[in-house]
Amino acid sequence: MNVKALAMVTALSAGALLSMPASAQFAKPEDAIKYRQGSLFVLGQHFSRLGGMAQGKIPFDAKAAQENADVVAYMAKLPWAGFGPGTEKGAPNKSKPDIWLEPEKFKEHADKFEAESAKLAAAAKTGTLEALKAAFGPTANTCKSCHDAYRSK
Amino acid sequence: MNVKALAMVTALSAGALLSMPASAQFAKPEDAIKYRQGSLFVLGQHFSRLGGMAQGKIPFDAKAAQENADVVAYMAKLPWAGFGPGTEKGAPNKSKPDIWLEPEKFKEHADKFEAESAKLAAAAKTGTLEALKAAFGPTANTCKSCHDAYRSK
Repeated sequence: MNVKALAMVTALSAGALLSMPASAQFAKPEDAIKYRQGSLFVLGQHFSRLGGMAQGKIPFDAKAAQENADVVAYMAKLPWAGFGPGTEKGAPNKSKPDIWLEPEKFKEHADKFEAESAKLAAAAKTGTLEALKAAFGPTANTCKSCHDAYRSK
Repeated sequence: MNVKALAMVTALSAGALLSMPASAQFAKPEDAIKYRQGSLFVLGQHFSRLGGMAQGKIPFDAKAAQENADVVAYMAKLPWAGFGPGTEKGAPNKSKPDIWLEPEKFKEHADKFEAESAKLAAAAKTGTLEALKAAFGPTANTCKSCHDAYRSK
């Protein structure tokens, strides 16, 4: 199956994935913590390449932009399962306790980021730097607002 | 080394990971190492849930099996970009030097795993435990043979 088809299948099943209880997914809190850290790191690597292009630090490459944005949009669905109840501790991490004190608010941030990532991927598909630039800022803002609220320095 | 130089080295390097997508660029070896470790960990978490079902350790759930297999098949494409030239060191890791001494052989392992993962996702889509079981073993074997050859204990 090609990447595009995979992305479609996943887009359809992502909601169910998020609603799976963390207890059913991770053997121990450490695994959940490493899972969310790993998926956010992978996501961040692809996202930073888009940032480099949007900010003119690396040459715009339409194909690379599309590939990176597709990975970001896919990976944007994964980390949240790693923030389930009981995963505050178990491995070194920068998550603030508020994540578990106001999970609905945290989920709003995650949802917003997912939505902006999908728009970013759509923008990258146009093949123009202008569209990428226009979509990159709003997506980056959703990263920042969540990090400001829920990630320790 | 900057991103562009790294990309050039990658493009020119004989044999190694020639199919690496244009999106595969890292600012420093540490990032590449954390990227491959993170993506393999995420992949492994989803894969182990399929293993639990295939081995009867957790109840078979057709929908969950399909979701997990889809993530495995998607994630199977990512880690290899993190094994580029010059990423042997830079952060603690278990990669054996042979990865960079015989990159074509390493790539064969990666390709085999990707191919089996795609079959596993197709099997999970049938919705039967029998199909999942039949496809899980061959996929797990591709993990094992690559780990045996290229991962330190």
